Amino acid sequence: MSPPTATGITTRIAAFVAEQPVNALPEPVRKEALRSFFNIIGCTLGGARHDGVTAADRALRSVAGTGHATLLGRARRADVLHAALINCLASSIYSFDDTHEQAVVHPSGPVATAVLALAELRPATGADLLAAFAWGVELECRLCKALTVPPAKGSLAWSGTGITGGFGAAIAASRLLRLDAATTRAAIGIALSQAGGFRAMHGSLCTPLMPAQAAQTGLRAALLAEAGFTSAPAALEGRYGFLSVFCETPDLDALAGDLGERFEILRNTYKPYPCGIVIHPVIDACLDLRRRYDPKPDDIVSVAVRASPGAMALCNNRNPMDELQAHVSLHHWVAVAFIRGTARVQDMDTLTAVRDPALTGFQDRVEAMQDDALAADAAVVTITLRDGRVLTSRIDHGIGSASRPMTNAELETKFATMAEPVIGEARTATLMRACWDLPALADAAELARLAA
Amino acid sequence: MSPPTATGITTRIAAFVAEQPVNALPEPVRKEALRSFFNIIGCTLGGARHDGVTAADRALRSVAGTGHATLLGRARRADVLHAALINCLASSIYSFDDTHEQAVVHPSGPVATAVLALAELRPATGADLLAAFAWGVELECRLCKALTVPPAKGSLAWSGTGITGGFGAAIAASRLLRLDAATTRAAIGIALSQAGGFRAMHGSLCTPLMPAQAAQTGLRAALLAEAGFTSAPAALEGRYGFLSVFCETPDLDALAGDLGERFEILRNTYKPYPCGIVIHPVIDACLDLRRRYDPKPDDIVSVAVRASPGAMALCNNRNPMDELQAHVSLHHWVAVAFIRGTARVQDMDTLTAVRDPALTGFQDRVEAMQDDALAADAAVVTITLRDGRVLTSRIDHGIGSASRPMTNAELETKFATMAEPVIGEARTATLMRACWDLPALADAAELARLAA
Repeated sequence: MSPPTATGITTRIAAFVAEQPVNALPEPVRKEALRSFFNIIGCTLGGARHDGVTAADRALRSVAGTGHATLLGRARRADVLHAALINCLASSIYSFDDTHEQAVVHPSGPVATAVLALAELRPATGADLLAAFAWGVELECRLCKALTVPPAKGSLAWSGTGITGGFGAAIAASRLLRLDAATTRAAIGIALSQAGGFRAMHGSLCTPLMPAQAAQTGLRAALLAEAGFTSAPAALEGRYGFLSVFCETPDLDALAGDLGERFEILRNTYKPYPCGIVIHPVIDACLDLRRRYDPKPDDIVSVAVRASPGAMALCNNRNPMDELQAHVSLHHWVAVAFIRGTARVQDMDTLTAVRDPALTGFQDRVEAMQDDALAADAAVVTITLRDGRVLTSRIDHGIGSASRPMTNAELETKFATMAEPVIGEARTATLMRACWDLPALADAAELARLAA
Repeated sequence: MSPPTATGITTRIAAFVAEQPVNALPEPVRKEALRSFFNIIGCTLGGARHDGVTAADRALRSVAGTGHATLLGRARRADVLHAALINCLASSIYSFDDTHEQAVVHPSGPVATAVLALAELRPATGADLLAAFAWGVELECRLCKALTVPPAKGSLAWSGTGITGGFGAAIAASRLLRLDAATTRAAIGIALSQAGGFRAMHGSLCTPLMPAQAAQTGLRAALLAEAGFTSAPAALEGRYGFLSVFCETPDLDALAGDLGERFEILRNTYKPYPCGIVIHPVIDACLDLRRRYDPKPDDIVSVAVRASPGAMALCNNRNPMDELQAHVSLHHWVAVAFIRGTARVQDMDTLTAVRDPALTGFQDRVEAMQDDALAADAAVVTITLRDGRVLTSRIDHGIGSASRPMTNAELETKFATMAEPVIGEARTATLMRACWDLPALADAAELARLAA
């Protein structure tokens, strides 16, 4: 296939995704799509009881419609646009979702929550839902890559998920609604025309609101297009169009080259721990030492951490004062790993969890040093015990990195730590099985009901 | 007052608008705000029955909540966010609303529809609603000016109303909700973080959807902030913040200089005719000739139009084939003016109206010539009659231009042509009186009920 040109690129993408048969996805792509979907359902349940999600639901429930769609992990239903917004907000509120290996986009949230809500309004099989989700995520990753990964020259200021999530959600929703190519193009145009979000909002609830808004506007765009609402034909490539405003030099090949042959969704990665990703290999090393030697916390005299330059630049923060600081505190997570043997949302989502004296006391014994030879997914942790033993764990590729993807079993553990506190052990187990069985589900909405 | 600096500018604006007493607006500002409000209510009714509005309402009504708010000119009510979206879509769908004299922003639609819907949920006096509306429009015009009018260096690609309308709507809604300064700042940040819209969508329904989306997200931002949803503090000026992504060099003085002393809302203008603004003085001249001499269309042998360079560049289009082309066809509107003595929405909103043989036949007698000496708001029209008479009308400043603003009586005529086909003559008269009496209304929601 020759490199794509800008002319007609919106039309070509719309036609391509509208016309792909449901079984067109290669098996590895279907598998990775299912893993992405599984992971984001767990994340959505994990964020369901966050104060910010509760605040948003409380503020908007009086203006939401009733009935069709499930708010995951909450005891009520609402209209599909409200559900997409609230569920996507929950899915991304701990930044614990997924990340494309190259483009800084967290692709699954806006797409999964849009199609899951829609499937409760318009019945769909699990196979249809999974294919719709896969194409939405695929095109979203491609668009973000086209805007931000060299040779593209883009801006760091935009929120990758904020500006491309609606595109993915619209494509997925269009497929589920069986829109034809022209109507899919309208849906894409409508969604792109509402794209936005910038990084200055970091550390506030506006950051997860950006993907949430993308989920909602993308789904809405497909519903509007279905009803005959129009878009200009060249939303991406047109003069004063999407590509022109969000990127200095977009990479069209990344966006539309080898469609159906190269799959960006295969480069999606999942976070095992709900903290700054550069801390992950450090946690791996600590948990590895704990597993192998089971040291009592009181017997640990000192912890020497050799960390990557990135980890030191972003996360060398002893004794964090609140949840946001804990998110990026290497010392906090070392203490959590040795004392609790975990690294879960509930280890940082309250001030009580963060300021636990057992944790803050332990952090005095942790010393972090920069090792310029370590890659971002590597770390070395050495502990000295009261009895004089010196034990070391070296991690070359942290769990969840591209070189060491999370296994399905690890994804299940992550899912369970998030879902069990919300819907209990038994229902979590049932829901996990149903998620893995998605391709065989006759009614995809069954999933949402299990996660209510 | 010294020129404003970027540091803390979001905080200062939020504090300013939150703390202004309701009677702080000078009388001329209140008057112009009322004229803006009056005009946009008429425009909203005028667009209420447009196919695009009907399509959007049909697509979204099944997912909208019920009850509180009026869809102007439609026979049903819905939740306040749906109402803000649909009403604002109607207000701007014919591009017949209002325009700031310098910044290309159509400020009233997003702000008026947001506060009107909100007033049905939370009772407010007319005076409170008018003050909220005035501050929303004022700040929206200031922000758009800061992004686009020299010395600012901005981009033509962004939709001015799309990116600043939510800011205005959030400010107005925050005032109506009586949010304090900190909460108003959060509302502003939430709204700004969702701003977007670009010009490539021109000629499609995505163009009016941008202000509609701004109305909805601005109102929603205030409701979210009220419920405790947070924003980063420096949404405007922060690194990777709003100003950085939407403008190369913003003009901070235009945004925040002389707040409460200089009023941009005084530079708001209203369109007397629902077509390209550069055609307006030509229509004025034609209607002037018709009024003075009452020529029968069949007696007009030829029409010679001397038009500004802008009018010729954009609107020298004989025999438009559809409604969109008619919008920018000088020849169409000359024919309408001489044959029907009008220039209304209903003269272009159907193919039947546009392709009326009486109009298309007449256009053959119209010749347009460029006159480089004419300003954008000037035109000269000369007709030659069958009896040999040659009659000329010269317009130096078209009605609705900054030098010749529409009078209140002209605004009433415009309102009536839009509202009467929708709600009838008697109710239109009642509604117009109620709009003018807004400052004395005990319950501002009364207006919405009159426009149902």
